[in-house]
Amino acid sequence: MRRCVFGLVVLACATSLYGEQRPEGPDASEVSAPEGFRANRVTYSAIMEVLASTRGTVSDADLEALKLLPLEAIWSGLGDYRVNYVRGFVSTQPGERVVGRALTMRFLPPRPDFVEAIDTLAAEGDWDRRYYARAAEEAQPGDVVVAELGGTDGHNLFGGMGALGIKLRGAAGVVIDGGSRDLIELQGDGFDGFPVFSRFFDVKTTSWLGVEWNAPVRIGQVTVLPGDVVVVDDGGALFFPSSQVPAVLESAAARATVEEYERELLRSRMHRFRDVYPLSPELREQFERSR
Amino acid sequence: MRRCVFGLVVLACATSLYGEQRPEGPDASEVSAPEGFRANRVTYSAIMEVLASTRGTVSDADLEALKLLPLEAIWSGLGDYRVNYVRGFVSTQPGERVVGRALTMRFLPPRPDFVEAIDTLAAEGDWDRRYYARAAEEAQPGDVVVAELGGTDGHNLFGGMGALGIKLRGAAGVVIDGGSRDLIELQGDGFDGFPVFSRFFDVKTTSWLGVEWNAPVRIGQVTVLPGDVVVVDDGGALFFPSSQVPAVLESAAARATVEEYERELLRSRMHRFRDVYPLSPELREQFERSR
Amino acid sequence: MRRCVFGLVVLACATSLYGEQRPEGPDASEVSAPEGFRANRVTYSAIMEVLASTRGTVSDADLEALKLLPLEAIWSGLGDYRVNYVRGFVSTQPGERVVGRALTMRFLPPRPDFVEAIDTLAAEGDWDRRYYARAAEEAQPGDVVVAELGGTDGHNLFGGMGALGIKLRGAAGVVIDGGSRDLIELQGDGFDGFPVFSRFFDVKTTSWLGVEWNAPVRIGQVTVLPGDVVVVDDGGALFFPSSQVPAVLESAAARATVEEYERELLRSRMHRFRDVYPLSPELREQFERSR
Amino acid sequence: MRRCVFGLVVLACATSLYGEQRPEGPDASEVSAPEGFRANRVTYSAIMEVLASTRGTVSDADLEALKLLPLEAIWSGLGDYRVNYVRGFVSTQPGERVVGRALTMRFLPPRPDFVEAIDTLAAEGDWDRRYYARAAEEAQPGDVVVAELGGTDGHNLFGGMGALGIKLRGAAGVVIDGGSRDLIELQGDGFDGFPVFSRFFDVKTTSWLGVEWNAPVRIGQVTVLPGDVVVVDDGGALFFPSSQVPAVLESAAARATVEEYERELLRSRMHRFRDVYPLSPELREQFERSR
Amino acid sequence: MRRCVFGLVVLACATSLYGEQRPEGPDASEVSAPEGFRANRVTYSAIMEVLASTRGTVSDADLEALKLLPLEAIWSGLGDYRVNYVRGFVSTQPGERVVGRALTMRFLPPRPDFVEAIDTLAAEGDWDRRYYARAAEEAQPGDVVVAELGGTDGHNLFGGMGALGIKLRGAAGVVIDGGSRDLIELQGDGFDGFPVFSRFFDVKTTSWLGVEWNAPVRIGQVTVLPGDVVVVDDGGALFFPSSQVPAVLESAAARATVEEYERELLRSRMHRFRDVYPLSPELREQFERSR
Amino acid sequence: MRRCVFGLVVLACATSLYGEQRPEGPDASEVSAPEGFRANRVTYSAIMEVLASTRGTVSDADLEALKLLPLEAIWSGLGDYRVNYVRGFVSTQPGERVVGRALTMRFLPPRPDFVEAIDTLAAEGDWDRRYYARAAEEAQPGDVVVAELGGTDGHNLFGGMGALGIKLRGAAGVVIDGGSRDLIELQGDGFDGFPVFSRFFDVKTTSWLGVEWNAPVRIGQVTVLPGDVVVVDDGGALFFPSSQVPAVLESAAARATVEEYERELLRSRMHRFRDVYPLSPELREQFERSR
Repeated sequence: MRRCVFGLVVLACATSLYGEQRPEGPDASEVSAPEGFRANRVTYSAIMEVLASTRGTVSDADLEALKLLPLEAIWSGLGDYRVNYVRGFVSTQPGERVVGRALTMRFLPPRPDFVEAIDTLAAEGDWDRRYYARAAEEAQPGDVVVAELGGTDGHNLFGGMGALGIKLRGAAGVVIDGGSRDLIELQGDGFDGFPVFSRFFDVKTTSWLGVEWNAPVRIGQVTVLPGDVVVVDDGGALFFPSSQVPAVLESAAARATVEEYERELLRSRMHRFRDVYPLSPELREQFERSR
Repeated sequence: MRRCVFGLVVLACATSLYGEQRPEGPDASEVSAPEGFRANRVTYSAIMEVLASTRGTVSDADLEALKLLPLEAIWSGLGDYRVNYVRGFVSTQPGERVVGRALTMRFLPPRPDFVEAIDTLAAEGDWDRRYYARAAEEAQPGDVVVAELGGTDGHNLFGGMGALGIKLRGAAGVVIDGGSRDLIELQGDGFDGFPVFSRFFDVKTTSWLGVEWNAPVRIGQVTVLPGDVVVVDDGGALFFPSSQVPAVLESAAARATVEEYERELLRSRMHRFRDVYPLSPELREQFERSR
Repeated sequence: MRRCVFGLVVLACATSLYGEQRPEGPDASEVSAPEGFRANRVTYSAIMEVLASTRGTVSDADLEALKLLPLEAIWSGLGDYRVNYVRGFVSTQPGERVVGRALTMRFLPPRPDFVEAIDTLAAEGDWDRRYYARAAEEAQPGDVVVAELGGTDGHNLFGGMGALGIKLRGAAGVVIDGGSRDLIELQGDGFDGFPVFSRFFDVKTTSWLGVEWNAPVRIGQVTVLPGDVVVVDDGGALFFPSSQVPAVLESAAARATVEEYERELLRSRMHRFRDVYPLSPELREQFERSR
Repeated sequence: MRRCVFGLVVLACATSLYGEQRPEGPDASEVSAPEGFRANRVTYSAIMEVLASTRGTVSDADLEALKLLPLEAIWSGLGDYRVNYVRGFVSTQPGERVVGRALTMRFLPPRPDFVEAIDTLAAEGDWDRRYYARAAEEAQPGDVVVAELGGTDGHNLFGGMGALGIKLRGAAGVVIDGGSRDLIELQGDGFDGFPVFSRFFDVKTTSWLGVEWNAPVRIGQVTVLPGDVVVVDDGGALFFPSSQVPAVLESAAARATVEEYERELLRSRMHRFRDVYPLSPELREQFERSR
Repeated sequence: MRRCVFGLVVLACATSLYGEQRPEGPDASEVSAPEGFRANRVTYSAIMEVLASTRGTVSDADLEALKLLPLEAIWSGLGDYRVNYVRGFVSTQPGERVVGRALTMRFLPPRPDFVEAIDTLAAEGDWDRRYYARAAEEAQPGDVVVAELGGTDGHNLFGGMGALGIKLRGAAGVVIDGGSRDLIELQGDGFDGFPVFSRFFDVKTTSWLGVEWNAPVRIGQVTVLPGDVVVVDDGGALFFPSSQVPAVLESAAARATVEEYERELLRSRMHRFRDVYPLSPELREQFERSR
Repeated sequence: MRRCVFGLVVLACATSLYGEQRPEGPDASEVSAPEGFRANRVTYSAIMEVLASTRGTVSDADLEALKLLPLEAIWSGLGDYRVNYVRGFVSTQPGERVVGRALTMRFLPPRPDFVEAIDTLAAEGDWDRRYYARAAEEAQPGDVVVAELGGTDGHNLFGGMGALGIKLRGAAGVVIDGGSRDLIELQGDGFDGFPVFSRFFDVKTTSWLGVEWNAPVRIGQVTVLPGDVVVVDDGGALFFPSSQVPAVLESAAARATVEEYERELLRSRMHRFRDVYPLSPELREQFERSR
């Protein structure tokens, strides 16, 4: 009985709500894009517009400081950004690390109408439709190209010529969630100091199309935003906003000091491991006094 | 010797070109987004703006006609759009087919700054940050929700309540390049006629965030555009622009007639297979005469 | 300078500590196993001995109540035990659910010395070295056999005869992180109500050896303890201690009532989805009043 | 007719048998664990108790001898232990080999009740709940830590600090059927002579729990027993009881002599390959005479 | 010293041997293929020529008898042919079994010179270059088409029209180590009694080329010879020579009788499982008497 | 009405056609293999017989020229043979390239009747049944052994002794779509200049059987013909007929000249990337003039 009454109440008060639901698709009330808007060099992202005021830029000095820290030390200081870790790349320059700022690109597979639109946009914006070529014209010193390209089932970003062009712009390296050509060339001396981290290497030329430039991308199971600090070596890649850098540097410095002390204690072979790592109250007191 | 001369020429004529190269990032010359722009219901995509004038809408009658055609018959008529095929989904309603218009969504993994921006946008745009909930308010009859969600390593789109909400909007079904909850519920009678095609099913609630609505997405190795015709059954999914429909229907009809004739000939067991499929000149002549 | 002093302090106070470190391996101070101990029917597990006093048993009535709840509803009420979910099994009786108490078995691959020791133990303990056969003698009504068997690279647990023996004991079903024989037989009517959830099915006879009985096992990335409540259907498996059952039943009941109400509201098509799921303050108030 | 009679006979003679079947679970007749038993340093394993009298220890001299033999030469002499081979590890020190005695550890994923019990046990036994830390206190010179940790879907064992602690105990290396942290550090000079063979490397800290110490474990599809001889290099890992060592050394020595002779013959280019490998009767006679 | 002498001996006696080694490639001493030989309908296989005299043909009666036996019962009687088991196919007609004689085909990927040669051969031999079409002309009643087609990374064999043609020849079914088109059509009623077991289903038309007809092929990790008995159902596929059939039928019959007796004993619940399966001496005696 | 008439026509004219269909299997009209035919050193392949007249041999000079070209440069000149690329091998000599002529071998898994036939054939042909041993007797300088061996799920080709034998014949290297033994030995200095590219390395001895020698094989998804030019390095393998070599060398030379010019232009940093790669009309004109 109560249910029936309730049903009527629902009926009475809800009709207008339903009528207010907005239809799908653009309509008269949508704000139009201004002329020339789509030719902007940075792909419009509502997300990035919202975030713009809070996104600082990491300094070159901080990049240098980060370069000396192990991935694990940085990760430990990242708090809620610890999720932003990806592994599974092959490096063209094993043993080298890259630290820089993310220049992001998103690629999609080709289809006829899409290819045509990409060509139109590139013409209007006066950039090269091949995003590796565009990066070879627009990348800034310290940039790390970060390309969403379909992962292990995806496609190639570029070959040696594109890599050379990007390197000459002063970029620090490349992270590709996809593939690359010219493995042997990229392994050579000519690319010392410019590692390419890729899921695979293949001889085929690229056919996927760059669809967003410096907009949010997905690398593995991580969201990378343009301007993110990127740290990548053979152990994987971390991506985080520059706002995290002070905390990371501070915690890593503290951690490094303690760990150096701990290693010394371990090497003395005079303590139980558990009293050293982490420091027991007594040893921590000693440590504090010794500083 | 010739090389030296050349070098000088290069030097002489190229300086100005290089100085004209545009810097990376937004600058004074970029066109600003107008107020309220980011609250538009359809996520801005330069690609879709370019394509807008050429994107028709498939009629309900054509959808009905497509519903009767095998995937392979449609594929055969797709020309350069044959690349737009994806397989590897599990259906909650085996044996059922979905034909409709793509309502696309792109999801990305969460990180603190990103989550905050998504919340801001949802508030400004007055939509639900949970895109399945938004679809349950905005989907149109005949829509097929197409969600880019990380593939087999990705995350869940929704569960039974979200599916119910979307179904009640008259949507035809869902294709998820990712996962879903509530497998058993979605397999039930309550969801007859509303199949969900997903990479996997998992009990966990969703945490990835919808970042683009009705903008280009990637499903497997295929680019799907909002408004694409979607045909999906246990054999896989096809996505193509409505402009392809007349040619598809025509070729499929012609093919169906010939194939029915060929099957009849085969069943008569009076011809060599090679003379029937494809029809030999003689049999084709007979076929033409018999129509 | 300070460091040197510190080094001396370390040297002075740590020598004795280091001397106290215990050597590896059993020594005189170890407590010996009493005679006949290894022939106990339940494999000794220090973990389970610690937990013994806190491990209750789920009642048959609670099992019945759990049988009616979707996996997702149970999962939602599991709090920190939500990690205890595994998916990726193939069921011999699609559409059926199993709810019961975990009878766990751990298997290891054979090697000559190991096989011999297993035979000795089985003789001393008077059980069948084939653990499926042992289960066919010792399983209790309501038990769910949970076998750690190497996952998709592992081995078979049993075939139809072993399954029949276990079924006749009143066991509710079987979960194998490994394989099984006799797929077709187990799919048959004779095994209605006794689903086997396995990673794969293969004709080969089993060769791995049961090494622990009713001790902790790993299924996928989940630790299962003997006596755990097991709920498994085509959507996956949950394992949790009986202490969680009251909270699960309560939260699921509450959730079910709300969700039924929400579904009714959705079907009325008179509210925005976001106001229904979850209930807006107004609708929640209505809901509370309507109960 | 015969069948009926049989049925009666079965009925008559079997009742008592059935009544004797033991119930599942511990009962009054089970032998209790003595006080302090669970605090023993070596986890109780009925299997290892049975095997104890037959398990010798490999001598340091034999380990040195084994260190010079290729994996394949050892494998050839292993007879029924040839199954005990695992491949698919990544080494932190490519080109280095490890030969030693297995110190085994089994890990399981965490869940609240389980974590609590592990803490209780560690307190009672006065060991570190973190098994890498425990190994850094208890490992003996020549030990090879062998950790069952979930394979490629598992978790990390330790990082550089734990590795340093274990190395300082004189352990020879580590084999992890799971992951490790601090790849770059472990690749460094500080860990020369102490290779870690792992399925993967990841920055995350470990969360799985050590549940058995020096008890049987599974590495890939192989059972490893504590005290097993371990030989591992970039080509994979072998595990076998010390009782196999004399036969291995003898067969490998014989094989090495013959193979050296065969290589010399091949290099002479004066014989058909088939007459050299294996030696034809004539060449074998020459070989025997030449020794 | 001894070694030097030996070296000389080697030198002295081996020169002629080496000079006799045959060069690679065809030479004057090779026997030429007779005219028209390559147009033979059955691809020449030296292996099959050697085996010809010993290869019997399984009778239709035996096929019928085999059809009633579970895969596991057949496998048990196969002795050294137990290795000839493959699993991992998807059936278009779940629940159906196929028993028949292998008509084998080997396919290779296309390349220009290869395609041209295939065309030449097909013209000379007067068969259809499309081997599914050729099977639709040449398959015999009771044949099971067994196609080596690259496994899960391979290509499609055929679609519904080819399947119809082959079915109309009286073939019993198809096993493809590769893919097929027209999943939905093949799942339909029109193909009842003609299951296709395939690794995957895809809409693309086939492009790989049939290169051997009724010659040895590899399916998974099993060698299949033309004329092999094939038994395949949802549990996998067995391939064996007809010479094994009598032993298989006999052992399976014996096994079936015993197992039926064992099941009856188990259902009586009056015996320990271990006394029933396998039968204890007492119960075996009873069994023998009861027959 | 029209249909009925048509049906009759079909019936009338088709009977004879059907009667002409050839039965499956060898029959009286088949051309018999001449005596000794199966003992030919090169396995008979109808395909290769057809192609024989058009298959040239690549010169040693051309092999040397190819050795200097990157894989990508060769691939670019391959036209329709671009499909003939395979990646995913592990090299025993990273950094080394192999260029040579394909000596192909096809292997199949063992089964009793098959093993027996292989033994018979080897005896008749006077070759070693172990194909690696046969290669160690028959390979020619510049040969690259290319073995079809089941891919990552396949088996081993050989170990160090077989590799030594083949190397001593002057072969250039080995490509195995399968595995190899003796990884460490093959990585050693003794095998400098003789890289083995394999899918995996394992200690087990080989058991699969060579069934075809210098006949078409499948490597990954590529058909390799005996005598093909093989180019393989850490970036993958290319296989193509010698007829392609002139075009490859010419296009690669042209490409190399242009690319060297382009690199110089890029390094001058005075041009937009898009004007350099590819050369703009102006720069191309400059380039042409500078030559």
